[in-house]
Amino acid sequence: MERIERRACFGGWQDVYRHDSAVLGCSMKVAVYLPPQAQAEGARLPVLYWLSGLTCSEQNFITKAGAQRYAAEHGVIIVAPDTSPRGEGVADAEGYDLGQGAGFYVNATEQPWAAQYRMYDYIVDELPALIQAHFPASDKRGICGHSMGGHGALSIALRNPGRYASVSAFSPIVAPSQVPWGQKAFTAYLGQDRAAWRAYDSVELVLAGAGKGLHLLVDQGQEDEFLAGQLKPELLQAACGAAGHALTLRLQPGYDHSYYFIASFIGEHVAWHAAALQA
Amino acid sequence: MERIERRACFGGWQDVYRHDSAVLGCSMKVAVYLPPQAQAEGARLPVLYWLSGLTCSEQNFITKAGAQRYAAEHGVIIVAPDTSPRGEGVADAEGYDLGQGAGFYVNATEQPWAAQYRMYDYIVDELPALIQAHFPASDKRGICGHSMGGHGALSIALRNPGRYASVSAFSPIVAPSQVPWGQKAFTAYLGQDRAAWRAYDSVELVLAGAGKGLHLLVDQGQEDEFLAGQLKPELLQAACGAAGHALTLRLQPGYDHSYYFIASFIGEHVAWHAAALQA
Repeated sequence: MERIERRACFGGWQDVYRHDSAVLGCSMKVAVYLPPQAQAEGARLPVLYWLSGLTCSEQNFITKAGAQRYAAEHGVIIVAPDTSPRGEGVADAEGYDLGQGAGFYVNATEQPWAAQYRMYDYIVDELPALIQAHFPASDKRGICGHSMGGHGALSIALRNPGRYASVSAFSPIVAPSQVPWGQKAFTAYLGQDRAAWRAYDSVELVLAGAGKGLHLLVDQGQEDEFLAGQLKPELLQAACGAAGHALTLRLQPGYDHSYYFIASFIGEHVAWHAAALQA
Repeated sequence: MERIERRACFGGWQDVYRHDSAVLGCSMKVAVYLPPQAQAEGARLPVLYWLSGLTCSEQNFITKAGAQRYAAEHGVIIVAPDTSPRGEGVADAEGYDLGQGAGFYVNATEQPWAAQYRMYDYIVDELPALIQAHFPASDKRGICGHSMGGHGALSIALRNPGRYASVSAFSPIVAPSQVPWGQKAFTAYLGQDRAAWRAYDSVELVLAGAGKGLHLLVDQGQEDEFLAGQLKPELLQAACGAAGHALTLRLQPGYDHSYYFIASFIGEHVAWHAAALQA
């Protein structure tokens, strides 16, 4: 882990690191916020993973969400990775919604993606191992994200409830199999057989009984420009109702898909995670 | 005032407007945060003006500082204008520190700047009149800024204490006449005669007894890359000491010149202004 940025922020450090990913086969950047409590001798703090949306890098969340204040209040490390493998040799596509910046948190099986588009394994296994090896991190983990990253957070937590004590999402793509963003990405990364898509579709996972004990917190802006076409939180609500899965879905009047929405409620999400992580 | 952006944020609205400026002779953008209290019938809220630094537009502060939370808590409108006249017909120069994005909050007297580079009059007169005409704003005003904008906030408040109930700055250029950024800009905008520079130099203004009753709050990061070469807060401290001017100068260990620094302390600045504006 090579540190390439360090900024004092709310009494702690907002860092960015570069490291070689064995899983992704390329150099990756990852942002790490270390709250003031991390400086204490022998500290072991819980970690909140943040997964960003389409087009984002590790920078968007750390410059725009204002989460550092709440992480400092609660003594939580926040780790914000990039959204896909990156670099000149890495497969890419025209458009913002496939290829670099659009990894969709899956392990691709199709060409030309299969060799490097393994964001699921990177987020679930490789990155947490690196974080625990290099930072004062405990093995308590929460996961949260926005849009494509909200899909990533929900689907990863549902499949790995023992690994995540808490999960929440802003404006998540809850049913990628049923909307254009997800259908385009899953067809490219996973192929035409929709059976392979189910393992990465939060609505399908809930209906199959995955992650049963994990209470889902979802905030969704009612003026979100992608609400009806890509996000469809009512599908998650119906699935949770049918499966008896705990869901707190908050429809927030007036809010859109932007970081102004995330900034307005990230404090409540960090508090939600901190309560579970420090229980 | 034509509204070109509106985002729900902390229960209020983060708007951006476009308007024709008679003083600057061009179309200008200005960001306005309206806290939830602005929606009340007959509301008249105090206004905090934010002046940004070199290269910034009206966007930097509203996307990165996280000030909306505190404005919503205290019921303060925040107005964040651009940093110079803008557009294809507007004079400009090579480099980031002169011309568009670098108006330095002065009324230029030299060519080719004199016709449009009148940011002092724009900030002191034209913009507040527009804000009071179009928004639920009282005539109570505070002013705050960063770097070049910290210079703007301090010098404007010192020259117009009756117009501003409060002033604060992050990492301000306190003595533009004595540092490279200021010397380059003032030579271009105001000419070689340094007597003309004094009216825009906070250290000179304090030494001349301007704005005597106005308590100055200044935060300065100790790891700021421009501290020794461009900012020199010790000159303001010495001037305030000599003139008996009230100054709270806080040197913040570890912090740099970035928005991570501003975000960490903007809450305290908004509270400082709110206390004066609502007294």
